Amino acid sequence: MAENQGRGTPREVSQKPPQRWAGKDILGIQEISVAEIELILDTAASFKEVSTREIKKVPTLRGKTVINLFYEASTRTRTSFEIAAKRLSADTINISASSSSVVKGETLIDTAKNLEAMKPDCIVIRHSAAGAPHLLARLMDVPVINAGDGAHEHPTQALLDLFTVREKIGRLASLKVAIVGDILHSRVARSNIWGFIKMGAEVHVAGPRTMKPAEVERMGVHWHTSLSEVIPIADVIMMLRIQLERQEGGFFPTLREYSRLFGLNMEVMMAAKPGVLIMHPGPMNRGVEISPEVADGPFSVILDQVTNGVAVRMALLYLLVGGEKESERSSL
Amino acid sequence: MAENQGRGTPREVSQKPPQRWAGKDILGIQEISVAEIELILDTAASFKEVSTREIKKVPTLRGKTVINLFYEASTRTRTSFEIAAKRLSADTINISASSSSVVKGETLIDTAKNLEAMKPDCIVIRHSAAGAPHLLARLMDVPVINAGDGAHEHPTQALLDLFTVREKIGRLASLKVAIVGDILHSRVARSNIWGFIKMGAEVHVAGPRTMKPAEVERMGVHWHTSLSEVIPIADVIMMLRIQLERQEGGFFPTLREYSRLFGLNMEVMMAAKPGVLIMHPGPMNRGVEISPEVADGPFSVILDQVTNGVAVRMALLYLLVGGEKESERSSL
Amino acid sequence: MAENQGRGTPREVSQKPPQRWAGKDILGIQEISVAEIELILDTAASFKEVSTREIKKVPTLRGKTVINLFYEASTRTRTSFEIAAKRLSADTINISASSSSVVKGETLIDTAKNLEAMKPDCIVIRHSAAGAPHLLARLMDVPVINAGDGAHEHPTQALLDLFTVREKIGRLASLKVAIVGDILHSRVARSNIWGFIKMGAEVHVAGPRTMKPAEVERMGVHWHTSLSEVIPIADVIMMLRIQLERQEGGFFPTLREYSRLFGLNMEVMMAAKPGVLIMHPGPMNRGVEISPEVADGPFSVILDQVTNGVAVRMALLYLLVGGEKESERSSL
Repeated sequence: MAENQGRGTPREVSQKPPQRWAGKDILGIQEISVAEIELILDTAASFKEVSTREIKKVPTLRGKTVINLFYEASTRTRTSFEIAAKRLSADTINISASSSSVVKGETLIDTAKNLEAMKPDCIVIRHSAAGAPHLLARLMDVPVINAGDGAHEHPTQALLDLFTVREKIGRLASLKVAIVGDILHSRVARSNIWGFIKMGAEVHVAGPRTMKPAEVERMGVHWHTSLSEVIPIADVIMMLRIQLERQEGGFFPTLREYSRLFGLNMEVMMAAKPGVLIMHPGPMNRGVEISPEVADGPFSVILDQVTNGVAVRMALLYLLVGGEKESERSSL
Repeated sequence: MAENQGRGTPREVSQKPPQRWAGKDILGIQEISVAEIELILDTAASFKEVSTREIKKVPTLRGKTVINLFYEASTRTRTSFEIAAKRLSADTINISASSSSVVKGETLIDTAKNLEAMKPDCIVIRHSAAGAPHLLARLMDVPVINAGDGAHEHPTQALLDLFTVREKIGRLASLKVAIVGDILHSRVARSNIWGFIKMGAEVHVAGPRTMKPAEVERMGVHWHTSLSEVIPIADVIMMLRIQLERQEGGFFPTLREYSRLFGLNMEVMMAAKPGVLIMHPGPMNRGVEISPEVADGPFSVILDQVTNGVAVRMALLYLLVGGEKESERSSL
Repeated sequence: MAENQGRGTPREVSQKPPQRWAGKDILGIQEISVAEIELILDTAASFKEVSTREIKKVPTLRGKTVINLFYEASTRTRTSFEIAAKRLSADTINISASSSSVVKGETLIDTAKNLEAMKPDCIVIRHSAAGAPHLLARLMDVPVINAGDGAHEHPTQALLDLFTVREKIGRLASLKVAIVGDILHSRVARSNIWGFIKMGAEVHVAGPRTMKPAEVERMGVHWHTSLSEVIPIADVIMMLRIQLERQEGGFFPTLREYSRLFGLNMEVMMAAKPGVLIMHPGPMNRGVEISPEVADGPFSVILDQVTNGVAVRMALLYLLVGGEKESERSSL
């Protein structure tokens, strides 16, 4: 299905054997292959249509249990996973750290082992510690999806970003992608750098010197210290959220100064290519890293990213939890 | 169905064409017409029966997504909406401000736009700012239900109150309704004043002078500064919750003083009409604005209000989300 | 079904009339009979299989509403009840104290009465006050399940512990069960003492003198002040969680001292019987009351307890909410 029902090419490639997901988890973009990314994006394309139906629900994961285990506050990511699971007819359980045994001092591993003992079919985890999802995945048989781990990776964000660019431009290879802002602390940046490079794009990053990760050149990206260097060449401009608390950490002098140097506004946009895509993972600081005119303007695909997030997460849940069931695939 | 299956009059008026809901949202009682209120109450009457069934569920909104976006704490209203949605087979997503991107400083509009991008079918919002639901409704295509906005309106509360009075007394026109307490800060009072007046009732309000809104006479109600003036004439007495924090604001001297002047107890009830209905939107301060003997007494319909709240909210979700689907109506 | 479809003995005892649950609530082990406990355990045995299916869901409680009303933070118990309800196809509503009308000062009784007015089919309550569930059960027609009340009882924990021991050893009668730790403050200990004694086991408790309840001998248990006295004779060793905040209360001098005297580690285990079962209700303080080697070792059934918790809670919900419906039993 995944390969065969992409938008526009319904069934003509059905001679190719249906692809399956071989791995157990989705922990990071760094760990997965180009073929796996393509499988996810193709599957997401076929699921995107479900959310446009009158009855936005398929029985694919009926009787399955998806646990959203969130150790950091989140609206959009948790809601996106919850909606994705429900549109697949899975049951969802939300656990947030504040109401959990974390209060009682239980270890992450014990919490996870206990949840696994209740026989869920997937655990989606967000945690402030890099590597937390990987630790769980090693110790558990149940599939684990990383919904953001510290400053490390946010793979489902990168996959929805790849999906959005591929959908809007039609390809990923040889595109020039600019990622702008606090690269050092951004799991979104890290996952997107791995993802776009894997898919053959050329990645340029720009931000304050204080926010440049030591390993950035080793990742294969081009580093710029000025926004004006990347704007004219970019096919895609991804603005990162600036964490206001970084100012206290001394990473930048003032919000006004940051905005003057790295904020995307209409004036800066004058130098951009026609048809450039403007992206932001949200939540936005309007007037800081992006001006309202640009965020709501004709080149912005920021809300498309959100819409596509549901489709990508439906695809991942399907591939990890229900992908192996040939009989269930027909029910899509 | 709505008009035709009122309790006691199952089908005999089926010659009248089925009514439809024309608007997109439910923002306030002030904005809706008498015919619309009647449509809602009639529809609620037919849904009330569902909660008495062995299997309390109809497939009407299967595959629809209802988001409860609550910026203020709430048990009864959020639970009532959630139960209403689930009894219609909709999927529900709960978002409370404490666990949301509000923490990250995102604007209300961006939060709502992001939620809309996930393709929900209805957003139920409670917010401390008057007008917040109206702002969202203007910016979004998805239906919005106001579950309480600041001191402005709480339309679903007024609708369930109208429903309860009509159910118990059989009509609304020409009834004398007394609303007692902190009129100034009460969205419940404001919505009920609009609602009862629209439906032809005569509304009397009583409370401390400090809690009299400037516009109250312009709303068409009769203002009283003494409880003893309204008790003998009222067919319905609605006691408002006194917010304990108002004492610090200097709106009344002490709880004891407030209770002595505006509390409803058995002694005060001696002057009431036989068959008077005692209402309270909850949560009650027992022994302050209402004595336990009255709250739990034979004239109290306080728990009927809660029961009817589920039916009214089912009706609203049905009318806004699923009302236009003739084919689905037969599945009720 | 309960008696007749136990694992291994599918139908051969069908001449016995099917058992029904006579009571309305599950408030404590102290109140229920041996026959009732057996009915629950037998029913749980038949439900345990559901969680091993490809589609882990039965339609038994479709259209029923289960409210989880938690006044204390909880991951495992709330999640276990929520999963149990969903696997029976019930709708679940979660209410936690922090987001509830508790904030507004409403009484527990009014909160419960209001919830009941929304026509749920079961209320699961955890509360810091002993007796809170009993109070609700007396005032409401809806079934109430005690999910932990103060230091009083945690009956569903005891039932899953009884289930686990019966499953692993094959019987409960005449077993020697050691419960170790803070007996005084433990609702888990209290419920398990009642439960194991009712089922014919011999209960030995060990802990610091400061944590010995006054009534412990009256409960029919053997009191020990040294761990070394109970280890060699026990068929089952249940370690209790030590609440770290008890140290401030002066109940024990230091964690190290507590652990030295009452912690279960490999050295202490040398004196245990072969085949002894090691239990813990969780969450564990690893390295305090139990060492990681023991918690994760071959005699530990700690994760089995969690798995069985879902089955036991499915059984309780079935018996209390859906047990009387002969027609629905066939749908299991």
